[in-house]
Amino acid sequence: MSAVNGLEDFRYIDQVERKIENVKQRASLRDIAAETGVSIATVSRVLNDHVNVAQRTRDLVLQAVERRRQDVAASRTRTVYVRCPYVLTDYFGVIVSSIAEALKLHGLRMLLDAGESGQHSAALRGLADQADVDGAILILPPEEGGELVALSQAGYPFVVVDPRVLPLPDIASVSAAHFAGARAVADHLIELGHRDIAVIAGPEEWLAGDARLAGHRASLAQAGVLLTPDRLRHVEPTVAHGARAAAELLSSEPRPSAIVCFNDKVAVGTLQAARERGLRVPEDLSVAGFDDIDLAEATNPRLTTVRQPLQEMGSIAVTQLMRVLDGHRPEALHIELATTLVVRDSTAAL
Amino acid sequence: MSAVNGLEDFRYIDQVERKIENVKQRASLRDIAAETGVSIATVSRVLNDHVNVAQRTRDLVLQAVERRRQDVAASRTRTVYVRCPYVLTDYFGVIVSSIAEALKLHGLRMLLDAGESGQHSAALRGLADQADVDGAILILPPEEGGELVALSQAGYPFVVVDPRVLPLPDIASVSAAHFAGARAVADHLIELGHRDIAVIAGPEEWLAGDARLAGHRASLAQAGVLLTPDRLRHVEPTVAHGARAAAELLSSEPRPSAIVCFNDKVAVGTLQAARERGLRVPEDLSVAGFDDIDLAEATNPRLTTVRQPLQEMGSIAVTQLMRVLDGHRPEALHIELATTLVVRDSTAAL
Repeated sequence: MSAVNGLEDFRYIDQVERKIENVKQRASLRDIAAETGVSIATVSRVLNDHVNVAQRTRDLVLQAVERRRQDVAASRTRTVYVRCPYVLTDYFGVIVSSIAEALKLHGLRMLLDAGESGQHSAALRGLADQADVDGAILILPPEEGGELVALSQAGYPFVVVDPRVLPLPDIASVSAAHFAGARAVADHLIELGHRDIAVIAGPEEWLAGDARLAGHRASLAQAGVLLTPDRLRHVEPTVAHGARAAAELLSSEPRPSAIVCFNDKVAVGTLQAARERGLRVPEDLSVAGFDDIDLAEATNPRLTTVRQPLQEMGSIAVTQLMRVLDGHRPEALHIELATTLVVRDSTAAL
Repeated sequence: MSAVNGLEDFRYIDQVERKIENVKQRASLRDIAAETGVSIATVSRVLNDHVNVAQRTRDLVLQAVERRRQDVAASRTRTVYVRCPYVLTDYFGVIVSSIAEALKLHGLRMLLDAGESGQHSAALRGLADQADVDGAILILPPEEGGELVALSQAGYPFVVVDPRVLPLPDIASVSAAHFAGARAVADHLIELGHRDIAVIAGPEEWLAGDARLAGHRASLAQAGVLLTPDRLRHVEPTVAHGARAAAELLSSEPRPSAIVCFNDKVAVGTLQAARERGLRVPEDLSVAGFDDIDLAEATNPRLTTVRQPLQEMGSIAVTQLMRVLDGHRPEALHIELATTLVVRDSTAAL
């Protein structure tokens, strides 16, 4: 095999491809002619806006052209990669459903990577090489911030929902107002007269947990109270982990008069732990959750909790991505959506 | 513009494309040579298994070729369209997550269409025209059976999860053993001495609801009891609808001693309706659910319910689709997966 001159090759490919393009264009005129039953010359005249074509023929041809244009547009539908490396439960499922609906409204398709196995894959690395994917939405990405920054610096268009690490330079992101939400629920308990308010938080090293804890501390501090380490637990967000952590907190002497859980499932576990000890909620213990998933209304008593704007997070992430895809810089790089305190029956005056 | 001979065009395109292919192959050899720092001739020798190449050089080249092969394979990843025209709550979200994980294991990508707007779109019609989609998994499709049959007869490869209408000819599908599940929960209540067992079922015209109702009737009939129309309600599967239907049933005189709900959220509504009437569960009223979503353990008392094999449904649907994609006929066209009765605290002896 002899050496090949690269530039010549490319010139040759370019010429050849242009010839194919010409042939294809002619083929396309021929198809429209066949479909409408008029001559190729007539199709050409319509497309070149000649006047000597009957209105009915013109309409026929233009309709056929429009159908063809739509077919081509459909075959070129832009595709967005959405990664949610968690099981699509009431929490993540609602975010993903909302992203799905919003993408559909914009005429985009969603390539979804869901499930916990995504936490261990190197999904981001090959992302920029996938020619048929136009951009990405990454939900609570488990990666180190550096990997996200690298992807952004490589010019890849993406948006982060609920970033796990500190806001990242030049990366569009959206999350709930975790600080404000946690402060609101603590303020509510302070108003009810509580001072010894324990916290069962999520795993450490999670931006949202950090912000919530800061909100909690800020509210307590305002009332002159410091959160001591023995009143704080970090657990995985499940009923079982919540029950175990609550059992520990409730066996301390004196025991806290209220427990704030940074997750509704953890709050359900806390209700169970209280029941097992014969404690009545809210008479003997106030319990609050976070998220306001369906679970929160199923408990008895129904949970006081902080509603997260899950649907809005999904749709705003898509709006941000559309701007990024169109080459604009999103107006606000990081958008924080308001949370709402939902007072139900699991909290009461001390 | 002159008329064009179609056959000649195609011959011409064919020739041109073959030339491009040759050029591309040479380009590929050149790339590997550049990447590894050896000559094109050496790359060619390695690929043709010549012996006079140093082992280290051979390894270098083969690794580069393998990387390239993987890149090409990745760019050709097969894609499956998954449609779930419902919000991805604990129920549908778990099925979709499981499908996502199983597709990933097989190296396929998932194009997901989720959310209720999908119920009103004509998603199936354009499906066969999407050149970059290889097959589909349709979850509880809202379409008439005829539309699914037409898609199947057109040779499009797809699998149905939880078909809404009667099993369809030559269409692979998977669902839970609804009949057996409903019979098991009714048998459980019959054993506890209940005879007046009301049912709050899902919307009518849903295959699963039909099968569950048949299972319920079969169990009662075995004990010599007929389900009367005043003991049956059909509602949308929400807490609010469940509460309303249960309130009606509980205000009848005499009132039923047990209520079976064909959905856990409906059972939560039933618990609330009972509580509002001052009825204790399970002392005054037994309540059972269906699905065993997280909710079922959050209630007080915790729900007796029927666990659906949601994860298994997802992974088996993928296994079935893989066979259909490979051109095989699935071994069992309709697969029914076992359900499990989970007895908790909301049911008791009469």
